[in-house]
Amino acid sequence: MGNPYYECPLPVTIPPAKPFLESIKLGIKETLFPDDPFRQFKNQPASRKFILGMQYFVPILEWAPRYTFEFFKADLIAGITIASLAVPQGISYASLASLPPIIGLYSSFVPPLVYAMLGSSKDLAVGTVAVASLLISSMLGKEVNPNENARLYVQLALTATFFAGVFQAALGLLRLGFIVDFLSHATIVGFMGGAATVVCLQQLKGILGLVRFTHGTDLVSVLRSVFSQTHQWRWESGVLGCCFLFFLVLTRYVSKRKPCFFWINAMAPMMSVIVGSVLVYLTNAEKYGVQVEGVAVGRSFAMFKNYHIDGNKEMIAFGMMNIAGSCVSCYLTTGPFSRTAVNFNAGCKTAGSNIVMAAAVMVTLLFLTPLFHYTPIVVLSSIIIAAMLGLIDYEAAIGLWKVDKCDFIVCVSAYIGVVFGSVEIGLVIAVTISLLRMLLSVARPRTFLLGNIPNSMIFRSIDQYPIANNIPGVLILQIDAPVYFANANYLRERISRWIYEEDEKLKSTGGSSLQYVILDLSAVGSTDTSGISMFKEVKKNIDRRGLKLVLANPRSEVIKKLVKSKFIESIGQEWIYLTVGEAVAACNFMLHASKSNNQVADEFDAHNNA
Amino acid sequence: MGNPYYECPLPVTIPPAKPFLESIKLGIKETLFPDDPFRQFKNQPASRKFILGMQYFVPILEWAPRYTFEFFKADLIAGITIASLAVPQGISYASLASLPPIIGLYSSFVPPLVYAMLGSSKDLAVGTVAVASLLISSMLGKEVNPNENARLYVQLALTATFFAGVFQAALGLLRLGFIVDFLSHATIVGFMGGAATVVCLQQLKGILGLVRFTHGTDLVSVLRSVFSQTHQWRWESGVLGCCFLFFLVLTRYVSKRKPCFFWINAMAPMMSVIVGSVLVYLTNAEKYGVQVEGVAVGRSFAMFKNYHIDGNKEMIAFGMMNIAGSCVSCYLTTGPFSRTAVNFNAGCKTAGSNIVMAAAVMVTLLFLTPLFHYTPIVVLSSIIIAAMLGLIDYEAAIGLWKVDKCDFIVCVSAYIGVVFGSVEIGLVIAVTISLLRMLLSVARPRTFLLGNIPNSMIFRSIDQYPIANNIPGVLILQIDAPVYFANANYLRERISRWIYEEDEKLKSTGGSSLQYVILDLSAVGSTDTSGISMFKEVKKNIDRRGLKLVLANPRSEVIKKLVKSKFIESIGQEWIYLTVGEAVAACNFMLHASKSNNQVADEFDAHNNA
Repeated sequence: MGNPYYECPLPVTIPPAKPFLESIKLGIKETLFPDDPFRQFKNQPASRKFILGMQYFVPILEWAPRYTFEFFKADLIAGITIASLAVPQGISYASLASLPPIIGLYSSFVPPLVYAMLGSSKDLAVGTVAVASLLISSMLGKEVNPNENARLYVQLALTATFFAGVFQAALGLLRLGFIVDFLSHATIVGFMGGAATVVCLQQLKGILGLVRFTHGTDLVSVLRSVFSQTHQWRWESGVLGCCFLFFLVLTRYVSKRKPCFFWINAMAPMMSVIVGSVLVYLTNAEKYGVQVEGVAVGRSFAMFKNYHIDGNKEMIAFGMMNIAGSCVSCYLTTGPFSRTAVNFNAGCKTAGSNIVMAAAVMVTLLFLTPLFHYTPIVVLSSIIIAAMLGLIDYEAAIGLWKVDKCDFIVCVSAYIGVVFGSVEIGLVIAVTISLLRMLLSVARPRTFLLGNIPNSMIFRSIDQYPIANNIPGVLILQIDAPVYFANANYLRERISRWIYEEDEKLKSTGGSSLQYVILDLSAVGSTDTSGISMFKEVKKNIDRRGLKLVLANPRSEVIKKLVKSKFIESIGQEWIYLTVGEAVAACNFMLHASKSNNQVADEFDAHNNA
Repeated sequence: MGNPYYECPLPVTIPPAKPFLESIKLGIKETLFPDDPFRQFKNQPASRKFILGMQYFVPILEWAPRYTFEFFKADLIAGITIASLAVPQGISYASLASLPPIIGLYSSFVPPLVYAMLGSSKDLAVGTVAVASLLISSMLGKEVNPNENARLYVQLALTATFFAGVFQAALGLLRLGFIVDFLSHATIVGFMGGAATVVCLQQLKGILGLVRFTHGTDLVSVLRSVFSQTHQWRWESGVLGCCFLFFLVLTRYVSKRKPCFFWINAMAPMMSVIVGSVLVYLTNAEKYGVQVEGVAVGRSFAMFKNYHIDGNKEMIAFGMMNIAGSCVSCYLTTGPFSRTAVNFNAGCKTAGSNIVMAAAVMVTLLFLTPLFHYTPIVVLSSIIIAAMLGLIDYEAAIGLWKVDKCDFIVCVSAYIGVVFGSVEIGLVIAVTISLLRMLLSVARPRTFLLGNIPNSMIFRSIDQYPIANNIPGVLILQIDAPVYFANANYLRERISRWIYEEDEKLKSTGGSSLQYVILDLSAVGSTDTSGISMFKEVKKNIDRRGLKLVLANPRSEVIKKLVKSKFIESIGQEWIYLTVGEAVAACNFMLHASKSNNQVADEFDAHNNA
């Protein structure tokens, strides 16, 4: 009889009720400050607190005093590397947003300086991104035609940037960054892939040297526009575009295989711009359909990825960056993932690399802008397409299919929504499906039949462990999720069906009749009043069938509410056990007592001590 | 060493992958058919299936053949009883919906007949309800003035009824009845209370004998309207109203105390109508400000309650009832809770009581309508108020406060929304808060530190069981809910904070350093790809700190995905255990091996076999 469960069951403890205000305070802390951002301030004198606080909100104060020449060398290399990406991408993305190229360059100048002061990531490279640029042109383009009323359009774009900044900073200050969590990984993969596809399609204009082009962003409009003017295609432009694209994709492939060659990838866009411009200058290619004038490019939506990494504080830094940027003719910037990766590979040590980049961009602004006059659009289009191809993460999509079919559906819906509808439609569809899926999984939690794992007191799902054995006369059910109003009715019906089915099965096999129903509440982390009603109704139903309800391992949130609602009184505290094993032992003991012999309990004991 | 966990740990089973289509089929069945409604058709010959199918969809075929005279006697008494409620309430609620009283009577005639054929509940009494009536007048009243364009208004109300029926039947046919589950108990309590308050406020017009009255339903408009015309109050009407109200409330109180007197409560409204009409006829009271002409009343929102009980099939019956009703001048009907309770107390045996009620209402329509000419409005107002007072379930609200503060907030918001805004505003606010609360609880699941319950191999939350002991060098965390995209980031941060805090604590106390982190996944019923990424990142973080991640009791959905995503390979199958006890035993064994002596494991064993 060495069974600790059966001999001296420990009663399930009902935790003392916490004062209402204290539990509210704890709840708010857990909800809004899960990372406990102020933990370093605890038990510090006030002056130290002030310094730590300043360093917390303006991280440059923390790293600048211990900045060394070694750091500077590393940051210099990294900064120049990312600047060589930022300049061609800046002018390219600006054209994607239908903004003058110069605004793309400004945006790679002021925001990095702000971020260098306020941002806490040392690897993050700040700049414009393709998807945000596309969103600006598709949303503002509906209101104002950028060609007819360029001045108003630019003002609108800067205003939009300002409010985006205010919104970001407010979300960060209010610790609401977790709203972004509701964009699932699958949504982002699908959405980014779709946006990248749309941006690539837009570049067909530049690659094919077309003059007129649709304002729509969806696949159907673009393809119709492209194929309705096949006679306008310029082969010179097309050939040049394919060459540059091949070169860019090749350099990316090489860098990916051997990370030490990161600089090849980083320098390739700049090299393409220089080679393209020189080519045009020498050959007067603009006469042969190769359009010039700096416009266009693409980056990444890793914005979301970076929010995740850096949290609410980082959102404040991004917000400030956009607020400040919008005042000095910069449009929406964030931390593009691809450029951040280059920055990391280039060995940056502090956010100082952003300052170097800003300086390099300023030099470009002051002295090199005239050179870009001869940059062919086709080169910029190739740069955008090359950047975008990296965002179509088909491998991630295949991984989703393998691991979780539902996530794959979310991903494909986001992709199709963006490609055939618009960026907004894709986002709304994907978020809706993700939320519906989550609500559905909350509304339809699983219930499992548990059985005894032989030679142990462990009870596990018979589905998962087919070796687990039924206990005669006892039905053990596990509820697999918190019980809320959204699933209370379902669980009531499902449990009643389990009981009905078990009863039918026992009747048909002629075995001993059902006597006890044990509900394993280990996985029921919390409940609400609808959940409590569900338990009451289940108990009524079980009582009506002449059975006895037994609870196993109710958790602290649940047992508190069961006590307050007097459910524990009605079921009897002696029918609540710490483990399923104890509950089964007790049921067997009662079965045995009612059978007036020791057979059942002995069997069970023998069984478990074998 | 009689410890079954430690000596021969059973490996965690990875269930075989189910074929994709089969798992989809199972998922749909569990989602849409949790009650397995067709279980009785299994293994039956085709002819039997047809008969069972007909009986399933038209339940009258099932009970009519075995209808006895005994049943008829019971149904007759119950039917007449509910008819005596249905007639005054029918005309009263019709006036609440700004419809002619006759339509209220029609609605107590045709729909019950349809329900008697198609409905599966034997207790349910069909008729109009106050809240639906209020909704009709408040929504249609915005479009058409019922006094100026009565004909169009009635047509609109019938059209609305028709589409409500189509919608109900469609939800039922598509098995989407569970959408109603998203209205929580707390929402319904608050919403019903608010609607009842609004309906009562509207009756001040009738009680005080006012002629002009606001069209608004909110508290502010109504009170302004009432108190701006104090000189118009008719005291004769007020006194009469208070008397009837007192009588009705008293009879309800008596019936509630002694259920055998249910008929007092059921007859009281009819008695009030008769006494009131006779009084007016004899005293010419209409000359003293007591307005006449049959108008008004109120019932219940138990509509939702009944959906719950009867499910999707019942929704089809309700839908058919409203579709058929709208074609013969009936407006929206459902199964009011109060009248159903009377029907039950009156001892009805089958849905036949609805047929009796319909017959009684028909007799009223044919012969008794002229009598209602003298019915004073004040009596009808008293009937409505008395019915509505029963719907303001302040005891339930107090219960919510005691058991779940958050549910109480939902309830109060619904109430305030309805009383100060409108019915729609209240409903939207309450549903939004309920959903947000659920999303928040999904987004912020709790994590618990587990400890060993002395003298056992059981591990439980130290919060709940303060006697549970820490295991030196091992951090055991329990994740309390399914891991989804919405909580993956939070859990990652929270787990990293747990590890950081435990590390700090151990450092400050100078104890043995942290070596193992055990994640108890017992309560993680399922996960998605974002959840898998979270596990991968947690593992990276733990590896970086030089610790070892151990998983305990991963459930079948989770382990399948962990295998597919190759996470199991990276962690090593030997680091996944069936129980926390086994995982701890293994960690202790390793700790002991690394310390090159048997002390730790011996201590632990001695401890558990004590």
